[in-house]
Amino acid sequence: MNGAQALIRTLVDHGVDTCFMNPGTSEMHFVAALDDVTAMHGVLALFEGVATGAADGYARMAGQPAATLLHLGPGLGNGLANLHNARRAHSPVVNVVGDHAITHRPYDAQLQSDIETVARNVSTFVRTSGSTAELAGDAVAALAAAVGPPGSVATLILPADVSWSEGGVPIRGPRTAGATAILGGRAPDEAVLGAAAAALRSGQRAAIMIGGRACSGQALDTVADIAAATGAKLLAETFPARLERGAGRPPVDRLAYLAEFAAMQLEGISHLVLVDAKSPVSFFAYPGKPSDLVPDGCAVHLVAGPGDDAHAAVAALAALLEVNEGTAPRQAAGTPEAPTGALTSQSVCQALGALLPDDAIVSDEGNTSGLFAAGATAGAPPHDWLTLTGGAIGQGLPVAVGAAVGAPGRRVVALEADGSALYTLQAWWTMAREGLDVTTVLLNNHSYAVLNMELDRVGVETPGPRAREMLDLGRPSIDFVHLATGLGLHAARAETAEEFTDEFARALATPGPSVVEAIVPALL
Amino acid sequence: MNGAQALIRTLVDHGVDTCFMNPGTSEMHFVAALDDVTAMHGVLALFEGVATGAADGYARMAGQPAATLLHLGPGLGNGLANLHNARRAHSPVVNVVGDHAITHRPYDAQLQSDIETVARNVSTFVRTSGSTAELAGDAVAALAAAVGPPGSVATLILPADVSWSEGGVPIRGPRTAGATAILGGRAPDEAVLGAAAAALRSGQRAAIMIGGRACSGQALDTVADIAAATGAKLLAETFPARLERGAGRPPVDRLAYLAEFAAMQLEGISHLVLVDAKSPVSFFAYPGKPSDLVPDGCAVHLVAGPGDDAHAAVAALAALLEVNEGTAPRQAAGTPEAPTGALTSQSVCQALGALLPDDAIVSDEGNTSGLFAAGATAGAPPHDWLTLTGGAIGQGLPVAVGAAVGAPGRRVVALEADGSALYTLQAWWTMAREGLDVTTVLLNNHSYAVLNMELDRVGVETPGPRAREMLDLGRPSIDFVHLATGLGLHAARAETAEEFTDEFARALATPGPSVVEAIVPALL
Repeated sequence: MNGAQALIRTLVDHGVDTCFMNPGTSEMHFVAALDDVTAMHGVLALFEGVATGAADGYARMAGQPAATLLHLGPGLGNGLANLHNARRAHSPVVNVVGDHAITHRPYDAQLQSDIETVARNVSTFVRTSGSTAELAGDAVAALAAAVGPPGSVATLILPADVSWSEGGVPIRGPRTAGATAILGGRAPDEAVLGAAAAALRSGQRAAIMIGGRACSGQALDTVADIAAATGAKLLAETFPARLERGAGRPPVDRLAYLAEFAAMQLEGISHLVLVDAKSPVSFFAYPGKPSDLVPDGCAVHLVAGPGDDAHAAVAALAALLEVNEGTAPRQAAGTPEAPTGALTSQSVCQALGALLPDDAIVSDEGNTSGLFAAGATAGAPPHDWLTLTGGAIGQGLPVAVGAAVGAPGRRVVALEADGSALYTLQAWWTMAREGLDVTTVLLNNHSYAVLNMELDRVGVETPGPRAREMLDLGRPSIDFVHLATGLGLHAARAETAEEFTDEFARALATPGPSVVEAIVPALL
Repeated sequence: MNGAQALIRTLVDHGVDTCFMNPGTSEMHFVAALDDVTAMHGVLALFEGVATGAADGYARMAGQPAATLLHLGPGLGNGLANLHNARRAHSPVVNVVGDHAITHRPYDAQLQSDIETVARNVSTFVRTSGSTAELAGDAVAALAAAVGPPGSVATLILPADVSWSEGGVPIRGPRTAGATAILGGRAPDEAVLGAAAAALRSGQRAAIMIGGRACSGQALDTVADIAAATGAKLLAETFPARLERGAGRPPVDRLAYLAEFAAMQLEGISHLVLVDAKSPVSFFAYPGKPSDLVPDGCAVHLVAGPGDDAHAAVAALAALLEVNEGTAPRQAAGTPEAPTGALTSQSVCQALGALLPDDAIVSDEGNTSGLFAAGATAGAPPHDWLTLTGGAIGQGLPVAVGAAVGAPGRRVVALEADGSALYTLQAWWTMAREGLDVTTVLLNNHSYAVLNMELDRVGVETPGPRAREMLDLGRPSIDFVHLATGLGLHAARAETAEEFTDEFARALATPGPSVVEAIVPALL
């Protein structure tokens, strides 16, 4: 058995049975081994950022890691932005990067570069496997690092000769080994819990901000009960990896992206209790404005950070506060009417709220155009909301790919903006190839609209025509129906609210992927 | 004057007047400053790999660096693959990467990451500017590092507050400061020159392999004279950054990509004289095959490496050998007939040879489909040939963008393959936006054909269906006419040789960019 066969066998035995890949010559034995270990599902991407973003989306929905397979330093570079987002999402990823054969390295051939330095940007674990015999052990170590908790990107660099040589020794493991990323962690700190409980009981104004693993399941329900019982405001971090929401679930507002609005949400709070969330900071810095969004004099209680057992912390806090289970208000069912008239980003969101199917998954990279999406879908049937955790755009479509692979049978809606889509548009092809049930809503406002806003916010009062031109995507105009068709998907364009509603409904009702391009005016 | 204004003013004053960019919020002051310093030409890319590849192509043709503008660590990641190619091309690039404000860093906001580690993968110079007052000096230092010699990627990390704060002090410099990358370097080593001259005089079989700055201009002419006078075989490295060729120029074969063929080219050689080229090694390692392609017992004479003055070394060698100038044979003019019948990669290359206009620039990422391109164009009118220097695919279209910007008035032909094109397809939009005279020949064989070959070469004798599927781009089929149209270009599809010849001729005769998709069978 060669190294590649032992590696794949080991991964599959430990529950990692999906690999998003864009291989090259140095990875050919890994590819060949897919015929020896047929339990591994290889998903081809045309660009590495699709593979890494898909691994992130898969982890968020499947609750366990996928593997990636990338081609040397440049392949890792292409995948880096979405590994950054995965890092911020605490998604477990077993990131396999092929390298030249160890014997080839002294020659500094054209594709050689220092892979480990690049990998450190995103990885908690970086190891170059040194021998075929040790490779399976290296994979088990990478998997253990990836699942944490917290989940993280673990990079295993795989030299071609380690992969192709005989002498591979697979390691047996429980199929559940990868699933631990969503469970466990450090036990809660009693003193912090006590202080948080006292704060919540104090009668002073308090907020609980949740993130990570506190945004779903029992932890979400319990934290909502705590908020209801104590009168605390319940907020989610700005960009949660996966937020369960919709009718029958606890309603949770996310902290606003814009610091000005976030400050309003936090105004007057004396205590901020953090559950698997970081203390809130401005997404970007702006001249003369604070980075730290915690109000002056507000005490911060970190009852669970990444790597802590958020579920246990929430349960312990509820016990301290003697909170009764199931007392929190639940979101009432209720959806907007289908929109009519002119098509705007608001009417697109309205149609999204009107039509979102039960148990849907929304991969949200709508940016400025998606501003109304949360409100319009608040009372929609229960669904999961996946966001741009690390702020590196080009995440939405790849995460949709991974979510669809990781949660088969559920409809994925990718709420995508024109500027963002163009970083990783190749994801559409993988959706078509795999027949994934992903409906992309492409909000085309012909601009980097968020940057028009940011230009103003950073203090550029009268941007000139040359600056404006750098934010303009309308010259030439980009036609996403052509682009989607070129990549093998059914696509349609909507220019009125009625057209959008019809096309979106048709897309949702049709198995497999499709794209609805919504031509909308820029909001900003 | 703020930092951004001082930075751009300094760059322009030193001859760096083109910036390929994909900015974000932290770069908004740089963007705004384009209206203050109008001599800087900002070229927008929809993806960072387009910006960095364009900077490489620009440097190869303009002989001086462009700047880039990228958005934090993820933006650098997206640009890394083509910076790798630029590094291997010894192209000077002033790689500006925006970062969070210095005051914002302690908060570890979502987009924060360790930019410097990533930059080291490709850069000879990495500096994070620490203050607005020092920024212009940092830029001058980056430029000096970039121009070398040898040319290299110099990364200047620009914190947002360094950019936006007042107190910028521009530094005046000669407009020619950037142009030194193509000149100068360490003086040749007399002992090595003497040994090389003796070897070339010895009567033993010898080869001269040229790369880098020896592939064009006077150095190329002189080295050809040396080869003719001494009977040495003249070869170019496999992937030269820029090779001048065509009718009236010295004919030079490139060393083959496939080690098997390269070994045949070098067989029986007792002396190998290297001029701005590395000692030849296999592009990839293969089980049981050597990495080093120098024949056993062959002496290697490095008369000029990167950073050495290749022009001076060649001149000195010619003087030692008392070679008469202008004695080398020159390529006779002669072009193939226009092809007829079935369209194949061979007939596409035949049409290329038949129609290539005078003074054209070919950006060659045709991969397996481009195998016949060099032969078919050998006697075409004089032209420059730009190749995939670092092996990181996704270079061809971005380099074509940069070459067109850097050499206005010349027709650029991007010889591109389906698999490679899809990494950085966004380059087409920039071609349309800037009205660049780039004709893309898109060879669509519906597969990663090179990997089908490599699968066999790495010793996988009977690849199974699951492995084959990972190399198949035909399910679904990709339609590049739709893709080009979607990005704003005129495009046409050819399925016969006559159709291709007609469409290619029309595209060459039409100002601005267009795409001809050639449907061809996979060669391998």
